[in-house]
Amino acid sequence: MKSVIKDIGLADAGQRRIEWARRHMPVLERIKSEFALERPLDGVNIVACLHVTVETANLIRVLTVGGANVALTGSNPLSTQDDVAAALANDGTSVYAFHGETTEQYRTCIEEALKLGPHVTLDDGADVIATVHDAHPEYLDGVLGGCEETTTGVIRLRAMAAERALRYPVIAVNDAETKMMFDNRYGTGQSTLHGIMNATNFLFAGKTVVVVGYGWCGRGVAGRAKGLGANVVIVEVEPRKALEAAMDGFRVMPMREAARIGDLFITVTGDISVIRGEHFALMKDQAIVCNSGHFNVELNLEELRQMATSKTTVKDNVEEYRMSDGRTIYVLAEGRLINLSAAFGHPPEVMDMSFANQALCVKHIVEHHDQLSNEVYSVPTEIDKRVAALKLEAIGLETEHLTPQQEAYLHSWTLGT
Amino acid sequence: MKSVIKDIGLADAGQRRIEWARRHMPVLERIKSEFALERPLDGVNIVACLHVTVETANLIRVLTVGGANVALTGSNPLSTQDDVAAALANDGTSVYAFHGETTEQYRTCIEEALKLGPHVTLDDGADVIATVHDAHPEYLDGVLGGCEETTTGVIRLRAMAAERALRYPVIAVNDAETKMMFDNRYGTGQSTLHGIMNATNFLFAGKTVVVVGYGWCGRGVAGRAKGLGANVVIVEVEPRKALEAAMDGFRVMPMREAARIGDLFITVTGDISVIRGEHFALMKDQAIVCNSGHFNVELNLEELRQMATSKTTVKDNVEEYRMSDGRTIYVLAEGRLINLSAAFGHPPEVMDMSFANQALCVKHIVEHHDQLSNEVYSVPTEIDKRVAALKLEAIGLETEHLTPQQEAYLHSWTLGT
Amino acid sequence: MKSVIKDIGLADAGQRRIEWARRHMPVLERIKSEFALERPLDGVNIVACLHVTVETANLIRVLTVGGANVALTGSNPLSTQDDVAAALANDGTSVYAFHGETTEQYRTCIEEALKLGPHVTLDDGADVIATVHDAHPEYLDGVLGGCEETTTGVIRLRAMAAERALRYPVIAVNDAETKMMFDNRYGTGQSTLHGIMNATNFLFAGKTVVVVGYGWCGRGVAGRAKGLGANVVIVEVEPRKALEAAMDGFRVMPMREAARIGDLFITVTGDISVIRGEHFALMKDQAIVCNSGHFNVELNLEELRQMATSKTTVKDNVEEYRMSDGRTIYVLAEGRLINLSAAFGHPPEVMDMSFANQALCVKHIVEHHDQLSNEVYSVPTEIDKRVAALKLEAIGLETEHLTPQQEAYLHSWTLGT
Amino acid sequence: MKSVIKDIGLADAGQRRIEWARRHMPVLERIKSEFALERPLDGVNIVACLHVTVETANLIRVLTVGGANVALTGSNPLSTQDDVAAALANDGTSVYAFHGETTEQYRTCIEEALKLGPHVTLDDGADVIATVHDAHPEYLDGVLGGCEETTTGVIRLRAMAAERALRYPVIAVNDAETKMMFDNRYGTGQSTLHGIMNATNFLFAGKTVVVVGYGWCGRGVAGRAKGLGANVVIVEVEPRKALEAAMDGFRVMPMREAARIGDLFITVTGDISVIRGEHFALMKDQAIVCNSGHFNVELNLEELRQMATSKTTVKDNVEEYRMSDGRTIYVLAEGRLINLSAAFGHPPEVMDMSFANQALCVKHIVEHHDQLSNEVYSVPTEIDKRVAALKLEAIGLETEHLTPQQEAYLHSWTLGT
Repeated sequence: MKSVIKDIGLADAGQRRIEWARRHMPVLERIKSEFALERPLDGVNIVACLHVTVETANLIRVLTVGGANVALTGSNPLSTQDDVAAALANDGTSVYAFHGETTEQYRTCIEEALKLGPHVTLDDGADVIATVHDAHPEYLDGVLGGCEETTTGVIRLRAMAAERALRYPVIAVNDAETKMMFDNRYGTGQSTLHGIMNATNFLFAGKTVVVVGYGWCGRGVAGRAKGLGANVVIVEVEPRKALEAAMDGFRVMPMREAARIGDLFITVTGDISVIRGEHFALMKDQAIVCNSGHFNVELNLEELRQMATSKTTVKDNVEEYRMSDGRTIYVLAEGRLINLSAAFGHPPEVMDMSFANQALCVKHIVEHHDQLSNEVYSVPTEIDKRVAALKLEAIGLETEHLTPQQEAYLHSWTLGT
Repeated sequence: MKSVIKDIGLADAGQRRIEWARRHMPVLERIKSEFALERPLDGVNIVACLHVTVETANLIRVLTVGGANVALTGSNPLSTQDDVAAALANDGTSVYAFHGETTEQYRTCIEEALKLGPHVTLDDGADVIATVHDAHPEYLDGVLGGCEETTTGVIRLRAMAAERALRYPVIAVNDAETKMMFDNRYGTGQSTLHGIMNATNFLFAGKTVVVVGYGWCGRGVAGRAKGLGANVVIVEVEPRKALEAAMDGFRVMPMREAARIGDLFITVTGDISVIRGEHFALMKDQAIVCNSGHFNVELNLEELRQMATSKTTVKDNVEEYRMSDGRTIYVLAEGRLINLSAAFGHPPEVMDMSFANQALCVKHIVEHHDQLSNEVYSVPTEIDKRVAALKLEAIGLETEHLTPQQEAYLHSWTLGT
Repeated sequence: MKSVIKDIGLADAGQRRIEWARRHMPVLERIKSEFALERPLDGVNIVACLHVTVETANLIRVLTVGGANVALTGSNPLSTQDDVAAALANDGTSVYAFHGETTEQYRTCIEEALKLGPHVTLDDGADVIATVHDAHPEYLDGVLGGCEETTTGVIRLRAMAAERALRYPVIAVNDAETKMMFDNRYGTGQSTLHGIMNATNFLFAGKTVVVVGYGWCGRGVAGRAKGLGANVVIVEVEPRKALEAAMDGFRVMPMREAARIGDLFITVTGDISVIRGEHFALMKDQAIVCNSGHFNVELNLEELRQMATSKTTVKDNVEEYRMSDGRTIYVLAEGRLINLSAAFGHPPEVMDMSFANQALCVKHIVEHHDQLSNEVYSVPTEIDKRVAALKLEAIGLETEHLTPQQEAYLHSWTLGT
Repeated sequence: MKSVIKDIGLADAGQRRIEWARRHMPVLERIKSEFALERPLDGVNIVACLHVTVETANLIRVLTVGGANVALTGSNPLSTQDDVAAALANDGTSVYAFHGETTEQYRTCIEEALKLGPHVTLDDGADVIATVHDAHPEYLDGVLGGCEETTTGVIRLRAMAAERALRYPVIAVNDAETKMMFDNRYGTGQSTLHGIMNATNFLFAGKTVVVVGYGWCGRGVAGRAKGLGANVVIVEVEPRKALEAAMDGFRVMPMREAARIGDLFITVTGDISVIRGEHFALMKDQAIVCNSGHFNVELNLEELRQMATSKTTVKDNVEEYRMSDGRTIYVLAEGRLINLSAAFGHPPEVMDMSFANQALCVKHIVEHHDQLSNEVYSVPTEIDKRVAALKLEAIGLETEHLTPQQEAYLHSWTLGT
């Protein structure tokens, strides 16, 4: 099959960058070695709809080495890195992705990829699954199962399963501990601050940083900002999380109070309009506002625009809104994910874990599909633990091992004490 | 009913200490006010088997104010504070508990308490439930339900439920987030270090501290030791927890390596013999070893005794073992829980949350027993969240509130994005 | 010479406690070994006026092993530990110190000790030096020099030197980096929090802790409180220190604002009346107030007393002041140093460094007195660095060493680049 | 006077960037307002040799507003930002600086600037002072004094003063607390990690980071790396600093041990060849090595080159050295300052303080030159404290103020206690 990409001439540049990432994805490398020997995906057709990045390229190669035929489309019209697409196409993978697709082109790419006749689907937002279910049920019979990478996609699929509308089994890769812990906490934590530094050269020490949301992403961002010397304030709706934030040494308050004191605001809630007109009205002059949640809906920029007398691009990723009372508010990256807009997204060490789960879940589907029903499954604990164990090995750390006596004791608790 | 206690003359002293704790248990106080108005436990007989401490006394008073008749026994022959027992007896509660009971006396106390004819049982280790099921089934018919405070008890009860042997519904108070988070993480974290300071006047700054176990207790202890300037090493068997420890900046290694470098060792695993002969053999001269796990089985002191040429009590809670090669190893509190042995256990602010869950769960059982079957239930999420919300209110913090539009958005995710 | 102590029968108990401390003072031990070989203080008479604690006992033994004859008095009528005094007297040291001396007895003890005919004086507050200069100039001719341990004493002596009133050279042991860093930062930091835990069982996590003063003591206390999960607020008068506190992530505000929000207040300023009536008037109900500065003048308790309707001792080291508006304020240890009042003061590891400086400075005076004039000297840098180097060795750490080329480069900077 | 710059057409772009920095330099802004009113530098000729950056541009404008005539040259042939030079020239400042000067051109620029006839010189490395003293003594008579910004320059000037070779007074701006604290600790701390992230997308959490040098820069880098989740190892030659590092919770070891375990190495020592062949020989595969000290001499790359079988540029600022044993070592930015090479250097908030000291010291020289002799002076404490006070005000923080009684007490300490 042919590819639809921007420019095959970019393959060399892509290859060099993929190689740099590869060296920082040791778990995936280890799985690649195993797949090379065992060929567990021999003859398996995989249709993958993922962000076309250097890390994804390494996942695709693992699947290919394992024997799979892969057709890849981008999971967002803007996130495709054309040099990576070229390098993969150059390898022989069918790639249907280029930066700046129209919505129509985006759909066509998925449909082209599906012509491979998928046995397994990989999703980052459930678009392939949705397409198969809604528009191309002719592929349903051939599919053994699918994997989904995001919270959003998993919620969508759980709803489908609840209504008995899901027609093949799906594994929620998103929910693996080794995915959440790295990706959401450590990955988002560091890369969000990195994006802010790149956009603004902001000094964190001595500043009041308001983090809106204290889920795993929020915990990560708050901890790293504190680690750089900021005084961190948490805004949270769930009382147990709010209490945890307080116990972790942060101030906790509602947005209408935090709005008055923050030098920098970062949203990571998954909800809409968490910073809106009533809050922009209270902010200090020169406050900086950005988002690191998945969608660019957390800041209500429409309300800000209506309040502002002018809007100017000060520098890359920094827009200045002048208010009628003379204050200035800076918005970064137009409210899009700051870590992807102004930095490089998660480090490859982080994606190493997420994609190791993907690769092993594909294998799991191929080997166990006849025991699975049309539901959304958690990543099997053995896979989750194995990914953690491989990562520890890769970074040279060793766990303690239980003695037989200790194993026995743990299981004998039910006998009483 | 009469009480069986050490000395009613201690009531005044007990009362003063109970009062000090009361002031630091604002959530329980708030529930007391509500119970005083609503009398939700009017005429309910409660048999409680709990550590007889100042915090427990405050729980008992909340139940009494709510209308209950309470019979209290101690949940451990050594943990009863006789002045607290006296103060409660002085109030009119039936107390069957004194410090230093024999095992026989311990059992008799439970049997005496049961004569109240329980509608609800409260346990810290499942001894009342076990007694009713095994020895006094005549009470089963009267019981509406029970609460259990500990991990150990919950495991025991789950096993009973699995075998269909459980004869009334039980709520696992232990598993509430507002119990685990405070009690295991922040409570154990601080009080363990406090006990060590009291026993040894140990300076944490600059020392290598080995924490064995990275569950909630271990995370708490490790974080606080780091916060006091120690260099912390984690020993853990579960790969995901080990990896999390590494990502949190700690060194991770097996016990046989950690044994060589620690200045201080703290076990919080729930397993037996995690530090044993082979490890004591490797330790540095003057290493200090202690336990903060529930049972005194984590250190294999029998093996240490066999290796040592002498054992001397250096000072309260510090025993010195001389080894034949000239080294000295110090063991604190004979391997018993260091925070209870050498400090005051959890601060009352911590028990405030655990016991607020208890009080509200008793009310829940009374009001909803006819909807419960003979299983082990989690604490209802509304109760857990309400305890967190009350605590936040008590300490003067406010959460953010969702707008109707935000609520709607969160529920509309299934519609796709 | 004979001793004047409480009870020689306490010697054994004192000896055991001294021995425990000895094991945690490895630098002093190392110097003792050298002194035993070299006898650098042979025949030197030393009159020492120091707190009679287990750590001081170890210093005295080092001096004695080095050949000195020592007469010891307590440096405060209340700080003498009678068992330690007994153990030292039992050794043959002349001790004039017992707990609870009157001011008259305190002076007599110093005069008795002086009858030894001092060659070197050791002070913790400059009382021996003052006595020799003011009341017993007959000893001046025999004195080669003195050492002073405290900031207060050093200030006094610098004033004397400035007026040419100082009649022999004095080394300001207080100012050694290896004294300040350990004693003031790490020692006061941990032991202050330890004292507060002992007095109140206060949970630091989630609390607002106001630290008044951001010198080395304040930095230590603030850092440790943050390390235990508190949200720390700094009150400071010096703008550069205030700015440093802000850059370290703390909130900075004046006392009149901090007074409204603190759950716990700790003063470490060296000044008087830093928390006074106008501040007590603003505090929250149940605020806790204590001092860790040298003198009990930092809290203006007289003003608090006048505002309060009652004052009650709630428990050891906790006094409750009821205000006419219904609020309660708790004051710990009557405003005296909380770490000495409710815990054990600095850990022996800390005093190890301070007293190692003392021992080596005595040797320095004996060997170099003819090159010293009647001034206040800093601790020689070689001694300060040597104490650090010995401590590193004792705890098993190694510095990097400069190559000859690197040494040369550092000195060649003056040649330009 | 005319300017010698690259392209006046860049002025607009420069102006926008200068404006962004201006908004983050509130102390300098405040001084500018004062200077505008008071014109303290009316008619003063200033020859400044500084890095031509957006922050420097703001300093120059403050001086100009204060009445000075300024001639500016770059202090390094590579650090000039041509758009900034254009913007300043556009304002009317005489600028002699362009990116990529030859050494000859660099000298000529200084000589051209000197033709202004300086009353005050500003240096970042002492090149103007050296030129005046060595080559152009004809200007000496006119000079009232100078300021020097760097450690290196100050050392050079102190040596000159010691030899009575210094012919006019100089203020060591470098040594102000408000310069060192911000610039070296917080500035270098954050910007070094920022540069590393940009070059490598390195995830700090879970990595072993070796920081060589524990001066203010090293403390800053180590603290921030810990704050991002790294496990930090310190290599230091001075025992007191090494001990402080250990007390701060870091591991301390010599380079030959640290070399074996680091994932990332950062040098900040000011010395040469601190990581050299013998250390590269021990490193793990894929170790990353960089420098954040002033000169690119800290890494001995010559020895690395000799050991390597190949050297390849992997990506911007990352060079890969392949070793004959198969290992790979990555060197960032060829050993040059990583924060300037791969990020933006210090944030403007940091330079705000340094340059506020510069501006006020120039004023001080103009007003007090007749009281100064030909020596190197510290920044007057009033200036240092005033800069801190202005910064606090700018960021909305307030210090506590002493009462008259407190002032009196502090000064009465000499009266005894």
